[in-house]
Amino acid sequence: MEQTDLVTTRYVTFDTDLRLESGRLLGPFTIAYEAYGTLNSAGDNAILVTHAWTGDCHAAGRHHPDDRKPGWWDNLIGPGKVLDTSRFYVICANVIGSCKGSTGPASINPKTKRPYRLSFPLVMVRDMVHAHKHLLDHLGITSLVTVIGGSMGAMQAVEWGILYPEFTRSIIPLAGTGRTSPMAIALNAIARQAIYNDPLWKKGNYKPEHPPASGFALARAVGHISFLSEESMEKKFGRRFSARDGIFDFFGQFEVERYLGYNGNNFVPRFDPNSFLYLAKALDLYDVGWNFSSMEEALSHLHCPSLWFAFTSDWLYRPEQTEEVVDILAEIGKPVSYHLIDSDYGHDSFLVEPHKFTPYVVDFLDEIARAQGV
Amino acid sequence: MEQTDLVTTRYVTFDTDLRLESGRLLGPFTIAYEAYGTLNSAGDNAILVTHAWTGDCHAAGRHHPDDRKPGWWDNLIGPGKVLDTSRFYVICANVIGSCKGSTGPASINPKTKRPYRLSFPLVMVRDMVHAHKHLLDHLGITSLVTVIGGSMGAMQAVEWGILYPEFTRSIIPLAGTGRTSPMAIALNAIARQAIYNDPLWKKGNYKPEHPPASGFALARAVGHISFLSEESMEKKFGRRFSARDGIFDFFGQFEVERYLGYNGNNFVPRFDPNSFLYLAKALDLYDVGWNFSSMEEALSHLHCPSLWFAFTSDWLYRPEQTEEVVDILAEIGKPVSYHLIDSDYGHDSFLVEPHKFTPYVVDFLDEIARAQGV
Repeated sequence: MEQTDLVTTRYVTFDTDLRLESGRLLGPFTIAYEAYGTLNSAGDNAILVTHAWTGDCHAAGRHHPDDRKPGWWDNLIGPGKVLDTSRFYVICANVIGSCKGSTGPASINPKTKRPYRLSFPLVMVRDMVHAHKHLLDHLGITSLVTVIGGSMGAMQAVEWGILYPEFTRSIIPLAGTGRTSPMAIALNAIARQAIYNDPLWKKGNYKPEHPPASGFALARAVGHISFLSEESMEKKFGRRFSARDGIFDFFGQFEVERYLGYNGNNFVPRFDPNSFLYLAKALDLYDVGWNFSSMEEALSHLHCPSLWFAFTSDWLYRPEQTEEVVDILAEIGKPVSYHLIDSDYGHDSFLVEPHKFTPYVVDFLDEIARAQGV
Repeated sequence: MEQTDLVTTRYVTFDTDLRLESGRLLGPFTIAYEAYGTLNSAGDNAILVTHAWTGDCHAAGRHHPDDRKPGWWDNLIGPGKVLDTSRFYVICANVIGSCKGSTGPASINPKTKRPYRLSFPLVMVRDMVHAHKHLLDHLGITSLVTVIGGSMGAMQAVEWGILYPEFTRSIIPLAGTGRTSPMAIALNAIARQAIYNDPLWKKGNYKPEHPPASGFALARAVGHISFLSEESMEKKFGRRFSARDGIFDFFGQFEVERYLGYNGNNFVPRFDPNSFLYLAKALDLYDVGWNFSSMEEALSHLHCPSLWFAFTSDWLYRPEQTEEVVDILAEIGKPVSYHLIDSDYGHDSFLVEPHKFTPYVVDFLDEIARAQGV
């Protein structure tokens, strides 16, 4: 986007029931999305960008001319950029279960006129994908050039390939995993318990203006640690002590500690704790083999070319976890490419150092688009 | 120890002031310790075993015939064992700041007749060592054959070598670090905040019978994660779901989550939250170069042979952190040996798989003892 191009988040409400993996129904449901570029008449030049845990659909451009920052992947999306909006119609949609415009636990349940809170059904990554398929059909998209996203976005990309093989012409999962590891679940367990321990949480029945702030800030700090790496922490903080504190003060803090507290607290007004918990659960439950007899069987349904990236210092979804999936795909003869990107920024590398992987994305997209004549 | 040999924890109170690194005085102070074997007349056949964060001085034997478990390193300490009590006088002492018998924040301040709580001064690992020197002098020990310990015990071993080079004839640090990394500090920050967030903590002024149980259990769970490893979690839990829970229950738990909660809660009655916080601080502040111009200068004071162990899957104090120290020692011409032990049990490996490193300890001790004619 150019700085002068303003974008708007749009909302579509589907007056239908989504049958979730849990067997429960969700409906009507709203999807918030943004779109950049123009859909061609065949409806086949669309790229879907999938967001991570606490992400949103504001992937590019600015809502207001004075916005301090553009959308979260603005460096990738725009005319002449990696996801070239003069050529592709790029869409990013908020997942169900979130609090950034799509239906989630903070939404009003139209049947009761009250917020869902913990009466919201558990959603899996697969449910998010099915919900977004309604949006893409609504927009007249007939097939996707690719689905690209990191972390939970990578999970969605894989599910698109498996669930909608005719519709999905390629996928680009970054910093993903075939199934969440017990270490990642354990870290989410700590984050969860931090919220549960906060008396203001009230089993999810907090007032939006009185959220369980201390517990939620702590939960976010746990996440933050898992997104960083030894190397990035050494670079960014080392063992520097907060300049305002005495080293022998009981409450004195190292810089890394001060930073975690600061960022955790900043996050509180920006996200809904119940949404955070629902999406953490979706991450924990993620297993590409879910409801298939095996990971192999699940992946046999993926027909399109896939381009995978893992990052050396990512200890949340380690490269071995991506490689497990890539190896299976190669073994069963699927068209698969994989790059292990050397980066010190941990799980966040896909956001911090895009230049290290985007050249591969450009080549890959050229090939996909050329094969389809887009 | 044979099962029939009962041991007793002993206590010595020193009616003197310990000048701490912070400049504050602590005194009188009590040290709790246990001893196994017999001190020779020269007082030079002693081995000091140093314990970790939440450890205690009950390293071997049983207090009562019906004790379910012996001391924490009983498999290493006893007649004919690695630390052979028919030959060596083995001592383990509780560190100051702890709540396991030595003076700490839960102790009564003799000057006020009330518990210290947060009026207790911050202690550093170096202070723990100085305090224990009083005990060893009191016991008539003239020099130590070795100081051996893991984690915080490794830190103490190194400090013994640097602070008392004439007294310390060798050191055996296991799973240690030359300086705590920002990642380790960040994890402790989470644990700390979990306790601070608990309304029952009351800035340390909780009643012992009403500890901040939820926050403390969560803090312990954070520690637990850092002591385990990807590999050990995969082996022990994988992605198994708790048999009692439904996978789509909001509060349903994976096994790893259930385990962390269970262990955290079990820990609450066994340790004092304030002590936990003080010792976490001592760990965070640990830097072998403290008050020296550099790590190199600090290590130049170490004259004795040292035998170091790191463990491949330890991500809390990673092998690289031990290697940083070992490399410096080698560079400045100190007698140093190092073994990287292949183990899947993370930071806890030194407790879980001692057979992987003890053969090296036996050879090393033989050499040290032979050189000194013990």
